[in-house]
Amino acid sequence: MRSAYIEQMAELNGVLGQMCELAGVAMERSTQALLQADLAVAEEVIGSHEHLTTLSTQAEERAFALLALQAPVAGDLRSIVSGFQIVADIDRMGALALHVAKVARRRHPAKALPEEVNGYFAEMGRLAITMASNAREVLTTQNPEDALKLQDDDDAMDDLHRHLFTVLMDRDWSHGVAAAVDVTLLGRYYERFADHAVLIGRRVVFQATGQTPEQFIEV
Amino acid sequence: MRSAYIEQMAELNGVLGQMCELAGVAMERSTQALLQADLAVAEEVIGSHEHLTTLSTQAEERAFALLALQAPVAGDLRSIVSGFQIVADIDRMGALALHVAKVARRRHPAKALPEEVNGYFAEMGRLAITMASNAREVLTTQNPEDALKLQDDDDAMDDLHRHLFTVLMDRDWSHGVAAAVDVTLLGRYYERFADHAVLIGRRVVFQATGQTPEQFIEV
Repeated sequence: MRSAYIEQMAELNGVLGQMCELAGVAMERSTQALLQADLAVAEEVIGSHEHLTTLSTQAEERAFALLALQAPVAGDLRSIVSGFQIVADIDRMGALALHVAKVARRRHPAKALPEEVNGYFAEMGRLAITMASNAREVLTTQNPEDALKLQDDDDAMDDLHRHLFTVLMDRDWSHGVAAAVDVTLLGRYYERFADHAVLIGRRVVFQATGQTPEQFIEV
Repeated sequence: MRSAYIEQMAELNGVLGQMCELAGVAMERSTQALLQADLAVAEEVIGSHEHLTTLSTQAEERAFALLALQAPVAGDLRSIVSGFQIVADIDRMGALALHVAKVARRRHPAKALPEEVNGYFAEMGRLAITMASNAREVLTTQNPEDALKLQDDDDAMDDLHRHLFTVLMDRDWSHGVAAAVDVTLLGRYYERFADHAVLIGRRVVFQATGQTPEQFIEV
């Protein structure tokens, strides 16, 4: 049974990796749609979201099949439950990328972002894509050190997010309240996307070591 | 084994119900702190958040114990996995209430909200508290019809949220960008709180009937 578990768990993590890739691609295109007010790209993200939902259902079915294997040991049970939680994280990442695409579509043909904050969003987009890619990588390698490094990218994201608020709040913001509302929500979407990637990293540490990240760092 | 499952599942749902109550109380007090710029109440919410985290760990341990029962049948496995997902939903509700309290604390002694939108937040708070209470109720009763009604409250929340954006965007907003940013984020916190309560209702429908809400409504 143990070898069946190991094989099926690797397959589940493979599907989760694919899902991360889809979420990363969605955020990449949404960012492009946002920065360039590109309606076709925004529509493409919105239209392809269903693919992630389909994979999500497949991943959950695989996780249920693993639970139904005869008497998985306690650590294995925890890894399988982490699998369900990772599905939920990636679903949310996909939903956040979708939100970005929808803002781009809603404001088209205008740009949602004032020129002044484009650089922030280009960089937040780059970080989000890197984090989705790193989450995919550690789901496959199950390397706990690499999984923990997702936290560093998130720190960079949080810094950008804070600076963005400084631009909004403290300077002579000349773009009006409507643009400020868009920028506020968009900033939050990128920040939450990154938070979920960090959570995936934390769950991989647990799958790989049986320890929480805090316990693992202490050793 | 089946009777052990039924008993332990009821106990798990009892803990989840308590967690909903805590999240609801947190949102009630956060709303009070927000509307009245009451620092002591904000601090109380922030300080008591740990209680929810403790219950969350307890609920997960109960769910793991249920999974470890010898060979739960397929439907039971799905109910237990729903239990884990409900823990995550309530954790998030608690975190969102905490965010509201932190905004109140950050702006103290000033009020975070312009007078003009107080009514919206009083009503969104009232709805959020009702939804947490209804989620608690259906976790105990496992009544699928009542669980589905959470969607109606959420529709009311979404309406309020949309109107709030109209106030922000379309009228002569005279409170500046900083207040607009606060109102935008706060509105999102209440809306997401409600979304998670709806998800709990959907999961209860599944626990009680083995069907998704869409399948259940069709019957």
